[in-house]
Amino acid sequence: MNLERYIAGDWGTSRLRLSLCQGERVLETRQGPGIGALREPAGDALRPLIAGWREAEGPLPIVLCGMAGSRNGWREAPYLPCPVDLRRLRDATLRFEADGSPVAIVPGLSCQGRLGNPEVMRGEETQIAGALALHPGLRTGRHLLCLPGTHAKWAWVEDGQVRDFLTSLTGELFALLRDGSTLLRASSAASSAQQGGSRADDGADDGFERGLESAASVGKASLLHALFAVRTRQLIDGRSHEWALSYLSGLMIGADAHGAIPLFDAREEAILIGDGALNERYAKALRREGIAASCLDGEQCALAGLRTLWQS
Amino acid sequence: MNLERYIAGDWGTSRLRLSLCQGERVLETRQGPGIGALREPAGDALRPLIAGWREAEGPLPIVLCGMAGSRNGWREAPYLPCPVDLRRLRDATLRFEADGSPVAIVPGLSCQGRLGNPEVMRGEETQIAGALALHPGLRTGRHLLCLPGTHAKWAWVEDGQVRDFLTSLTGELFALLRDGSTLLRASSAASSAQQGGSRADDGADDGFERGLESAASVGKASLLHALFAVRTRQLIDGRSHEWALSYLSGLMIGADAHGAIPLFDAREEAILIGDGALNERYAKALRREGIAASCLDGEQCALAGLRTLWQS
Repeated sequence: MNLERYIAGDWGTSRLRLSLCQGERVLETRQGPGIGALREPAGDALRPLIAGWREAEGPLPIVLCGMAGSRNGWREAPYLPCPVDLRRLRDATLRFEADGSPVAIVPGLSCQGRLGNPEVMRGEETQIAGALALHPGLRTGRHLLCLPGTHAKWAWVEDGQVRDFLTSLTGELFALLRDGSTLLRASSAASSAQQGGSRADDGADDGFERGLESAASVGKASLLHALFAVRTRQLIDGRSHEWALSYLSGLMIGADAHGAIPLFDAREEAILIGDGALNERYAKALRREGIAASCLDGEQCALAGLRTLWQS
Repeated sequence: MNLERYIAGDWGTSRLRLSLCQGERVLETRQGPGIGALREPAGDALRPLIAGWREAEGPLPIVLCGMAGSRNGWREAPYLPCPVDLRRLRDATLRFEADGSPVAIVPGLSCQGRLGNPEVMRGEETQIAGALALHPGLRTGRHLLCLPGTHAKWAWVEDGQVRDFLTSLTGELFALLRDGSTLLRASSAASSAQQGGSRADDGADDGFERGLESAASVGKASLLHALFAVRTRQLIDGRSHEWALSYLSGLMIGADAHGAIPLFDAREEAILIGDGALNERYAKALRREGIAASCLDGEQCALAGLRTLWQS
């Protein structure tokens, strides 16, 4: 068995990202189906994806985070309740052997959220652990972390402990409204074109900024009351489809940031952990709330977290 | 031509409801495709639906409201800007002849909404006019009206004028989340069943009430931050699918009412115009906001509005 090399995997609901690693280096990457798409046991689905590496290297250790540890995943790794010191992830990692490879599955976290509801995460805890491994400054003091995505997570980390966190449906709701709602149907865009085409100041950047602005001005009303404008801005104001799509994105991300910042009573800065373009959008939304954002790459953080857990 | 009988139609995006009427009596009803589903001109789509009545009665007057007057409808009846006296609907009704029948299409209304966005309605103005025709008490004084549905409308009516209104995406968002999101996937329910079945206090009524409660406690946060609980209440608390579906409904209707009432600075009562079961849900949500609701049947109001406009 090659003890220097290992396979690190972030196995989400919709996608599996596998990396063949040696220490801090990624030698090769591979993608596979998410836990939500599997029709066979997770171990059987993984086998062909890593067969080439196994042939070349022998059985390699495998360390996984995300939905691999869910009830419908490979094996259930029960949630660790918050507040929890991230160093406890190591002890709580589920370890077993499969086809001669040692397998480690990182547990998720649970908490009672600030709105009084149960909250869960799987995968983000590993990204947070990775962020702390890569940036020692985050290991002390209190930091608000935001992990944008399908189910965006906001988390307070204090002296290396995850205190509590909150889920926002931002990404999932954006996708549902973009793909399935009446807000962005082709007919709206076609209608505005009949009115003499799109306005000259149309464009994604302007749409996004106006969306952030609208989200912040909702006040005591609800996001529900702001959404119809995605349609009427096209129908009545002649805005383009592209503008309206960015406006919707601004509305959603703006509502997320505008709501979360007072809820966490955040004052100065936040750490974004995610995809570069999405981080940038959240950074803009946070700036409007008076919060400076530092952006970290989500995949790098996941890999660093998995490495830390494998090495222990 | 039979001058006593006429055809009244509420032609929405997703459905056409036609009634053969004589004065205040509905003799027969028929359903057809909504404007959004048409692949042929609206007049051509209507012809076979009313052929039987025409055969028996000769060419009858037709009075339509809703998307029939939209740019993608039969003929465009431009929006009347608010504030507008509802008696002006008669003058602004688009009239033409088709196959020997006089056709009247009621225009929609537009306004600048309270959140600073353009607002439009098509069909609800006829229901409001019908409500005033049926209930003379609504013709004077100031009344907050709510018309629940796919795109719920809140409107101030003062001395027979529609002052302004607001659209809430309540119904559309509920349907998108119910049918397409991860919040109510079978797997969540199946998982909770594995935990020993649903909790004893499960049930639609409790779920709805808890949803209203959650919507009211969102505070400065956003609806976005409350939605994930639809999933975790099943996953962690073992709530049933039925409970969670009603919880989602309570969250959406609660957020709509909780946001709209302060926006309109409403104090005492509101008039609900819609389907009976939906009215009842909104009435519960309004009671939590300290607002008493009177419920009117939406179809009856639409018919009364169309009758008023035909008779003029």
